[in-house]
Amino acid sequence: MHNVRPYTKLWVEREGTVVLSTWRVELLEAVDRAGSLSAAARQLRVPYRTAWSRLKEMEQHLGMKLLERHAGGPSGGYSELTAEGRQVVAKFHRVVAGVTELVDRRFRQEFGQR
Amino acid sequence: MHNVRPYTKLWVEREGTVVLSTWRVELLEAVDRAGSLSAAARQLRVPYRTAWSRLKEMEQHLGMKLLERHAGGPSGGYSELTAEGRQVVAKFHRVVAGVTELVDRRFRQEFGQR
Repeated sequence: MHNVRPYTKLWVEREGTVVLSTWRVELLEAVDRAGSLSAAARQLRVPYRTAWSRLKEMEQHLGMKLLERHAGGPSGGYSELTAEGRQVVAKFHRVVAGVTELVDRRFRQEFGQR
Repeated sequence: MHNVRPYTKLWVEREGTVVLSTWRVELLEAVDRAGSLSAAARQLRVPYRTAWSRLKEMEQHLGMKLLERHAGGPSGGYSELTAEGRQVVAKFHRVVAGVTELVDRRFRQEFGQR
């Protein structure tokens, strides 16, 4: 049982649709960093259409606006997370962090190593 | 945020190979119930070859014998979990149970419902 380690994947569903996952949260963070959904899609190497439909699914099922578009300026505007969107991202990270830590601890307790 | 709920998947790897997962543990339990790897493969609707190679991978990477074959008798013998195999299955279930419970609790704390 050397070099054996546990992995977890955590996601949130509503009525059979994934509304939060590591990838979806990465997408939101990438938009916030890059300033647009199209730039975020390029960074994550997915078609714009995929990024757009995942975002709309999340907004619809969570019942909140996650991104806000600021128009104008020399750069032609930018998108960023709304306050609510920022909170959801932080909450998801906190749940994942707590779980990863617990899994490691429980795994060591049961399997006696790491 | 109504009807929103968290899901987790937990698995154990060694050097890039999955050695324990919900499906793999189900396979072991199915052999123990059904008495043979071929009956277990039929129950889980996978080719015998798949079941056999998953079992061998687990045994090799965990460094233990998981199944034991008892030959003879009118039924032509049967397979069951070894004592070590039984322990691994029980440990995996305990880790999963603890994690599922914690995820639900953390999720409620962060997202304020369920």
